[in-house]
Amino acid sequence: VTGPLDRLVRALTRLPGIGQKTATRLAFHILRAPEEQADELSRAVHEVRTQIRLCSVCSDLTDQDPCAICTDARRDGALLCVVSQPQDVLALDRTGTFRGRYHVLHGVLNPLEGVGPEELKIHQLLRRFEAREIQEVVLATSPSVEGDATAMYLHRLLSPMGLRVTRIASGIPTGGEIEYADGITLSRALTARREM
Amino acid sequence: VTGPLDRLVRALTRLPGIGQKTATRLAFHILRAPEEQADELSRAVHEVRTQIRLCSVCSDLTDQDPCAICTDARRDGALLCVVSQPQDVLALDRTGTFRGRYHVLHGVLNPLEGVGPEELKIHQLLRRFEAREIQEVVLATSPSVEGDATAMYLHRLLSPMGLRVTRIASGIPTGGEIEYADGITLSRALTARREM
Repeated sequence: VTGPLDRLVRALTRLPGIGQKTATRLAFHILRAPEEQADELSRAVHEVRTQIRLCSVCSDLTDQDPCAICTDARRDGALLCVVSQPQDVLALDRTGTFRGRYHVLHGVLNPLEGVGPEELKIHQLLRRFEAREIQEVVLATSPSVEGDATAMYLHRLLSPMGLRVTRIASGIPTGGEIEYADGITLSRALTARREM
Repeated sequence: VTGPLDRLVRALTRLPGIGQKTATRLAFHILRAPEEQADELSRAVHEVRTQIRLCSVCSDLTDQDPCAICTDARRDGALLCVVSQPQDVLALDRTGTFRGRYHVLHGVLNPLEGVGPEELKIHQLLRRFEAREIQEVVLATSPSVEGDATAMYLHRLLSPMGLRVTRIASGIPTGGEIEYADGITLSRALTARREM
């Protein structure tokens, strides 16, 4: 076996979490799959690189500007959810629980790594409040040191504008065991306890 | 997020062992990777489908006919290793232990699934003995019911031709524990015991 198959195995091993064995298995699958399946994969890889850019409104990834969520009239324009990365929009929107719009920061504040407010899409975020349609901002960065710091920073920035600023809940995940939860999660869950 | 990214995630989930989460992770990696890495993957998928065919001598997958192994003059022409599938050539040759040539059957005998000798590349195998260069045939089908039956069949077919016919060893794998080996492997390992 030479040439093209080796090159495909090599290209696949560059993907995260794909080792030599998995790459070989995938390559042989691609070799034997129906022609249109391989064509589709090849085309999808190419198109994702050539057609995807950032939405000029929300900074999410999109192939049309503004993106499908920003132009969707059925969305609640009074609700804006701020997330750190495009994957988070996917994960949150898949739940079907949130029907507002999103804003993607493309990172979280991290002074040690030189990420300040200028490096995030905060300018673009502030511009969105000019239309006075948005009433509540849900800060949905991860409950990590940097995610919390970013939420805190945005809270200070946005509260004076007369907006309702909320933070996504953090606590013991559904199905998680109290016994095995880490201390920080447990103490957060206790602090954030609610009336039943 | 719409269009191209969704299509890439969908194309990736069609690969074996790749679920929604892994596909999403891979898609975002492809989106952010250096341009040439994505190009290479797209091209490799396309080329593996358009350039790879079967070697007219050994039936292995190749982009040149005869394949690189069949035309490699440094290989021992007296030694032929018969395997069931192209992946097995890769795995065996990677060891560097075998420096002969290969023949790929493209399956094993399986009467229940309608796979008889005619469905395998046995015609092509027999043709290779006309040159009288080959002296030993190593039957390297897997030690399964079908793999053993196929080896047995080929043994009967080839022994009368004055060839040395050998079978790849089967037993407890290196690093394996006697305690956890299955009964069939254990009894095979006992039967195939050798002088130290």
